[in-house]
Amino acid sequence: MKSVIIVGGGLVGALQACFMAKRGFRVDVYEMRQDIRDMEVVRGRSINLALSTRGREALRRVGLEDIVISTGIPMYARMIHDLDGTRRPIPYGKADQFIMSVDRRHLNELLLTQAEKLPNVEMHFEHKIVACDFNAGRITFSKSDGSHVTAHADLVVGCDGAFSGVRQQMMKKTLFDYEQVFIPHGYMELCMEPAPGDKFAMEVNYLHIWARDEFMMIALPNQDKTYTCTLFMPFDIFKTLDTPEAVLAFFRDKFPDSLPLLGEKYVTETVSTSKALPLISVKCSPYHVKDRAVIMGDAAHAMVPFYGQGMNCGFEDCVVFDDILSKHNNDIAATLKEFTEVRSVDAKAMCDLAFYNYIEMRQSVNSRLFLLRKKLDNFLYWLFPNMWMPLYTSVSFSRTRYHQCIANKEWQDRLIRRALYMSVPAMAALGYCVATRTRLLDAPVSETIQQLVERLRPTWI
Amino acid sequence: MKSVIIVGGGLVGALQACFMAKRGFRVDVYEMRQDIRDMEVVRGRSINLALSTRGREALRRVGLEDIVISTGIPMYARMIHDLDGTRRPIPYGKADQFIMSVDRRHLNELLLTQAEKLPNVEMHFEHKIVACDFNAGRITFSKSDGSHVTAHADLVVGCDGAFSGVRQQMMKKTLFDYEQVFIPHGYMELCMEPAPGDKFAMEVNYLHIWARDEFMMIALPNQDKTYTCTLFMPFDIFKTLDTPEAVLAFFRDKFPDSLPLLGEKYVTETVSTSKALPLISVKCSPYHVKDRAVIMGDAAHAMVPFYGQGMNCGFEDCVVFDDILSKHNNDIAATLKEFTEVRSVDAKAMCDLAFYNYIEMRQSVNSRLFLLRKKLDNFLYWLFPNMWMPLYTSVSFSRTRYHQCIANKEWQDRLIRRALYMSVPAMAALGYCVATRTRLLDAPVSETIQQLVERLRPTWI
Repeated sequence: MKSVIIVGGGLVGALQACFMAKRGFRVDVYEMRQDIRDMEVVRGRSINLALSTRGREALRRVGLEDIVISTGIPMYARMIHDLDGTRRPIPYGKADQFIMSVDRRHLNELLLTQAEKLPNVEMHFEHKIVACDFNAGRITFSKSDGSHVTAHADLVVGCDGAFSGVRQQMMKKTLFDYEQVFIPHGYMELCMEPAPGDKFAMEVNYLHIWARDEFMMIALPNQDKTYTCTLFMPFDIFKTLDTPEAVLAFFRDKFPDSLPLLGEKYVTETVSTSKALPLISVKCSPYHVKDRAVIMGDAAHAMVPFYGQGMNCGFEDCVVFDDILSKHNNDIAATLKEFTEVRSVDAKAMCDLAFYNYIEMRQSVNSRLFLLRKKLDNFLYWLFPNMWMPLYTSVSFSRTRYHQCIANKEWQDRLIRRALYMSVPAMAALGYCVATRTRLLDAPVSETIQQLVERLRPTWI
Repeated sequence: MKSVIIVGGGLVGALQACFMAKRGFRVDVYEMRQDIRDMEVVRGRSINLALSTRGREALRRVGLEDIVISTGIPMYARMIHDLDGTRRPIPYGKADQFIMSVDRRHLNELLLTQAEKLPNVEMHFEHKIVACDFNAGRITFSKSDGSHVTAHADLVVGCDGAFSGVRQQMMKKTLFDYEQVFIPHGYMELCMEPAPGDKFAMEVNYLHIWARDEFMMIALPNQDKTYTCTLFMPFDIFKTLDTPEAVLAFFRDKFPDSLPLLGEKYVTETVSTSKALPLISVKCSPYHVKDRAVIMGDAAHAMVPFYGQGMNCGFEDCVVFDDILSKHNNDIAATLKEFTEVRSVDAKAMCDLAFYNYIEMRQSVNSRLFLLRKKLDNFLYWLFPNMWMPLYTSVSFSRTRYHQCIANKEWQDRLIRRALYMSVPAMAALGYCVATRTRLLDAPVSETIQQLVERLRPTWI
């Protein structure tokens, strides 16, 4: 039985443990932090994630889809909060399509427990990676008491997040293309308590967005009837909010309808004393070292959180990896090579899409033209369900390869642009006919066009 | 007297030591390797660099320009070696403009000695950076005997190359944008011995280029009458050259005229047994941490070597830094901030130009259109010396900011494109006049154009 060390017992690491163990590998998971299941629960501090089709497919394969869906909260639309307090929904897809707000911690616990049910999985918490010798399949961890342990395996899988230690080791040893970017925006979380009577403070089945062009706040519902609100904003603006008075003035000006729901005292105290946290985007290649190591999830492609695809993309890594293993009959070398080839293209595309969607979320949703285009996309999707899939739908509600989602969108944009250009002479012809009362149906169309050309000719010369 | 630690005693580190010491800072240089001046000289293994205007300006300011120029070899043109053995020069600029082949080691020695002449400079060789505490201005080095020493300074300047330890420390502590890319091409050096009679084996005042579209070889002259030849090629092709026979066939096919000059035995043995080395490009930002640390040269912007600007750009860093220090009256915090703002834009532009020039060097020089454009550029430069500076000239023979060099080139391209479009109807009119024997001078031009329009009209409709 081949052995695998998975570094990282977060969402992707625990899921990958399930996949590898089901295939008969001997799996050891090493996680830097303590077991999340032993940690104290702090109400209202849950971070929530938006689970969509790609993530669900992965959970289905390890038998967890139903329980996760039954404990999440479906969100069928964005709910845009305008400055004047107006709320208007923009659906994510068709009436029955939704993304699901799930509790990160709860999901992580489910995955760890599911993995531990398999006899060939062992968990090691509070083990931090110190060094790797990929060729020897040897990896050294430091424990919380300062001692070191060394483990051996045929394959090392790094699922240890955006600041991955496994990736750092890979960077030292291979020709490794790497890019990390911090955006000029930071984020800060606020908790919106339930309304009196233990009810959700706002319409529940929505992802709430306060889009203010340069910045935005969003809110996702939690099982405990709280909302986790996240403020995304340039650090420069965060810096100006250093007194309760400044915060109050800012919220009154920009998010007036949220203030009574969050509570003035709570908001002003929290925002003026908390530190905004940075957002990183990471692209790299290759994802593997020979037949010895591979990285997945945020370790391979951390992205800004604006498309809600970070976890979904990481989960889909496990699905793709599993499919390639099947294709190559568990041949590790061939699988790792193909995984890099296939997945790095898609993950890079997804990182780009995530940047793009920040502009859509905080700015475009306020534009009439954007809303018109959404309607046109939905109409064409209804007409040609196999041909015209809107970008958001293909990313969130399909498993179309991410790079293909972008290619489709570009093709659609080109087509719409051409149709617009072509409609200009058609509209002119129509206008001419109306103006001259030419009855289109009386004369052959070609004649009408010829007349039009004759009439217009002098203006060309 | 404020104190500065410079990490790295290579070209940029030694130069920066001169600059900082001249300003009255107390300077300590820590270099990982032993003193290059104590190392054995190996004939024919010198790596040469192409010094141009930006580098010369820096050397002038520390009083080294004359001696460096007097020991270098000017190169006035590229010498293109075609497959059939034809050699054709393409000048770099005007008749008196040249880039200069200089010996890296000799230049490094000169700079170290020049720095040591200043009383407030101290050199520490065989000291490798281990850790930094930027806030405390504390930096720990390991010595060759394994012991550690800790040094303190007001400012840390990292001039420690593409794999900079200072930059690594900065990455851990700040929001640091970073990108490293390895191109799919590697390089391998060969030495071309002098011809009988201790003469240069080829025309001396040229940079020789064997441009073969997908790959190329170049040769720069050395003081000792050897040439350093460098083969740049995809690793995939290098891999196929693993036997003397394969190498011989390859050189006979691709670089036939170089074989007698390099020697068949030497080439086949060297290429089949040596390992091609990788080429890295690094972009990052910011270049500084508060008022405590800054990176320069390859540490901040390693580039592929195809524009011959790696050293020149690093040297210009020192000039730009010195100018900003003057502007801010030696205020470190203000200087570091402005240095990042100004220099990161330009260095990124130069990294892009260096990629671009690889295509120019190995491919475009074989294109007639490219040569025509070069002639047009030179003609326009002669007509409008202040308006139309060709790209290569602005990069190599001026101190125009790098990002401005690109902007100028884009503006020139646009103008030429427009001029081409506009010339199409003019040529058509001319053709018409010739065909109909209309005498342009007999009739007002407007009449001729009107005739032309009348004649052409039926074909439009």
